[in-house]
Amino acid sequence: MSNNHASLLKRLEQSLSDGSRTPLYKRFVSVIKEAVREGLLTHEEILPGEREFSHALGISRITVRKAMTALEMQGAVTRSRGYGTQICSQFEYSLKEPKGLSQQAVLTGKKPDTVWIDKQLVHCDQGIALKLDLEPGSDVYHLQRIRYVDQLAVSVEESWVPASFIVDVNDIGISLYDYFRLHQITPVISQSRVSARMPDSALQKHISLPDDIPVLVIKQLALTAQGNPLEYSISYCRSDMYVFIAE
Amino acid sequence: MSNNHASLLKRLEQSLSDGSRTPLYKRFVSVIKEAVREGLLTHEEILPGEREFSHALGISRITVRKAMTALEMQGAVTRSRGYGTQICSQFEYSLKEPKGLSQQAVLTGKKPDTVWIDKQLVHCDQGIALKLDLEPGSDVYHLQRIRYVDQLAVSVEESWVPASFIVDVNDIGISLYDYFRLHQITPVISQSRVSARMPDSALQKHISLPDDIPVLVIKQLALTAQGNPLEYSISYCRSDMYVFIAE
Repeated sequence: MSNNHASLLKRLEQSLSDGSRTPLYKRFVSVIKEAVREGLLTHEEILPGEREFSHALGISRITVRKAMTALEMQGAVTRSRGYGTQICSQFEYSLKEPKGLSQQAVLTGKKPDTVWIDKQLVHCDQGIALKLDLEPGSDVYHLQRIRYVDQLAVSVEESWVPASFIVDVNDIGISLYDYFRLHQITPVISQSRVSARMPDSALQKHISLPDDIPVLVIKQLALTAQGNPLEYSISYCRSDMYVFIAE
Repeated sequence: MSNNHASLLKRLEQSLSDGSRTPLYKRFVSVIKEAVREGLLTHEEILPGEREFSHALGISRITVRKAMTALEMQGAVTRSRGYGTQICSQFEYSLKEPKGLSQQAVLTGKKPDTVWIDKQLVHCDQGIALKLDLEPGSDVYHLQRIRYVDQLAVSVEESWVPASFIVDVNDIGISLYDYFRLHQITPVISQSRVSARMPDSALQKHISLPDDIPVLVIKQLALTAQGNPLEYSISYCRSDMYVFIAE
């Protein structure tokens, strides 16, 4: 058993014997989630098995199983036959599925939130005009938001949308893609470019990151179902929270 | 004109008036490439136009054009109508195309190289067994290499291949995928996972990176055309050199 697991067991023992009225499996869940937040357990780490937990902690396997099922439903672990239970602290984001992060978060039982920091009509510069197939200077909405998952700021996203696709910018709520769909527009992601760099001070202002955490930079172009440029976006995502999948 | 461009013009002036016999356009090319290597010009930066260079340096537009064409053929700049000439110092790597990095490098006029640091037959652990659909402990080749582009170490790649796909491991040269194709095996990338982190000391041993450059971590599973797991790989790529594209 690793050192990490030894200190995890110690924390579990303490919590399970603290005399509170909270059911054992719920206290088990809280300890695991806290250990992940504090970095004691890291992404893809394999947890001890049911039998091992039950034996070391003197609790029933049924209690362990209940805790693991709850953790799985909350997206905090993944379980697979023959490979055991793995910590899942990163957010898996498909590069192709235009579901938007908020919907992907909901699907895994996490609470997404969006704080808009800009929703302005601007004249687009040459670079954005080229991406959106517009004349430089055309009207576009500049949308900038901070995304939260379970109240933690995880990314800053900036996007540009031709003005013709937005009737009233104040109607855009937590999800831009939900707004599009409400107006019978179905976004299709045509290209994603993924790179990484250290966060600069402009980014740190919005999302305060530990010094040694790089950001993943995702540049995406979304088209309408008819193939017209709909949105060009640049997302800056905490690399300890995100993994991007292409398949 | 930006400060960067002012110092670039100064360097160009010096080089173009140094009395050497090297054709002007070649000296122009060298100055641009040196400025990129030293970080004076950065990825996606837009260069002054032909007219501007010609006017500021007192050389013909034909000379400028010749230099730009040479830079474009060497993959150091990209040119597009209406958007001018952009520095291209990053290596664009498609996540879907199983061409292998070496072939992608050759296509853009760069010189790829590979130094193998491990080519051993090992018993695979549970994690690798799961990826490759094998029994734990099965024979797999562990292949590890440092990749160079134009003599600069740009990535470290580790991969695992079921022993049955490799007849003689010493026949694998600069490209693993070329070896596969020589043996009538056509790799197909089935999934890529992209994340980022700071380089650890194990990686720094192989590829010495500046302190503030994160690495992109690409985990890929390649299948044969028949759908059998062929290679599981983890690549650690300098984030200042690579951008990954999914479309």
